[in-house]
Amino acid sequence: MIIYGKNTVKEAILAGRTVYMVYKDKKFSDRAIDNLIDQHKLKVKLTDKHDLNLMTSEGLHQGIVAEVRDYKTYQIEDMFDGKVKRVVILDKIEDPHNFGAIIRTAEAVKMDYIIIQTKGQAQISPVVAKIASGALEHVKIVVVSNLNNAVLKMKENGFWIIGSSLDGTETFTEIDPNLSYGVIVGNEGLGISYQLKQNCDFMVKIPMIGQVNSLNVSVAAALLIYKLKELF
Amino acid sequence: MIIYGKNTVKEAILAGRTVYMVYKDKKFSDRAIDNLIDQHKLKVKLTDKHDLNLMTSEGLHQGIVAEVRDYKTYQIEDMFDGKVKRVVILDKIEDPHNFGAIIRTAEAVKMDYIIIQTKGQAQISPVVAKIASGALEHVKIVVVSNLNNAVLKMKENGFWIIGSSLDGTETFTEIDPNLSYGVIVGNEGLGISYQLKQNCDFMVKIPMIGQVNSLNVSVAAALLIYKLKELF
Repeated sequence: MIIYGKNTVKEAILAGRTVYMVYKDKKFSDRAIDNLIDQHKLKVKLTDKHDLNLMTSEGLHQGIVAEVRDYKTYQIEDMFDGKVKRVVILDKIEDPHNFGAIIRTAEAVKMDYIIIQTKGQAQISPVVAKIASGALEHVKIVVVSNLNNAVLKMKENGFWIIGSSLDGTETFTEIDPNLSYGVIVGNEGLGISYQLKQNCDFMVKIPMIGQVNSLNVSVAAALLIYKLKELF
Repeated sequence: MIIYGKNTVKEAILAGRTVYMVYKDKKFSDRAIDNLIDQHKLKVKLTDKHDLNLMTSEGLHQGIVAEVRDYKTYQIEDMFDGKVKRVVILDKIEDPHNFGAIIRTAEAVKMDYIIIQTKGQAQISPVVAKIASGALEHVKIVVVSNLNNAVLKMKENGFWIIGSSLDGTETFTEIDPNLSYGVIVGNEGLGISYQLKQNCDFMVKIPMIGQVNSLNVSVAAALLIYKLKELF
């Protein structure tokens, strides 16, 4: 897969990801990254901005692109090892910016997995890797064909399922933070689908006191995750 | 100014903004919005997707665009009326998606003002209005030519200035939430500028326990604002 941008490429090298080739703008200069490339004896092709623009579909590549080994994805069963797990469940997040921002948050608070569905959802891509700004190296993504089935399997394996909506009535204090849980983040326009809502053990509410009261989905996800993790 | 998208146009009409003309895709159909247009006796031109794409520079217009009165901006002195104010200070947020998401959050928690600088910062635009999803109707934006000077004036007028960084040492409990404050959110790549940091009365830290530990700026802003507002 192609990845690009200083942070994304730097974190991939630091994480030991296999890098097949680094493509650098002739004018690129960043001592930390250049040192890393030397230390890891990576193959480099010097090129120009125009080529990098083409390779990244006009992405914000900052003069550096790398062809790397694809990101490994996981299966739902991988989560069921008997240990406590904290999981983010994405219900059809369409915008790669939102997916990337949620990966960053999940990494910063050490969530164990993010679950996505194959259809109707932004997938792992060069844009998502760029927005995630290196965090994709440290977050495990589970890819499932049917999110409802995945949630049912989680419940069978002792997970509590948490959703949020404007009319959620349960409070966070009712949730035992020591148990395994999955927190669902709904689609940008539609929120959490009807079927998934039925499977939630808790429906909580993010407090809002304005008139429009709509948060960006990656913002809402972060508020929920920080609250559940009791980090703040 | 041109605005577009269902939520953005709907909230503009609901807020009583002057609408000079509504441009609708011939195939557009949304009963709530169509009713609003009728009730407010707005002028409508039926057009097609191609024209709307051109008008919005390929924006996600959802079949509806409106030409509306420009959004009023405020001056720093407007904030100094002796009442307690809670303000978000944007230090060169470049990405309109981040600016729009921060406007949504500020609206949802009733922050009094957002301050932006004229240079090096995403300005109010059709894209920002779309991302803000109607919230721009209810958030007051102060535009200043020099953010450092603005912060100094705020301090003279009794505001506490709060910044955040990974090496922030003060805790939120040291901040009196009943006083006027401005919370600074730094540039996507560079964080808060050196000069502004010198003017912070408090440097706090958003807890992170991962390896990369970088949050999207609109996510970081939301975590700070919700924490300061003690809403959660």
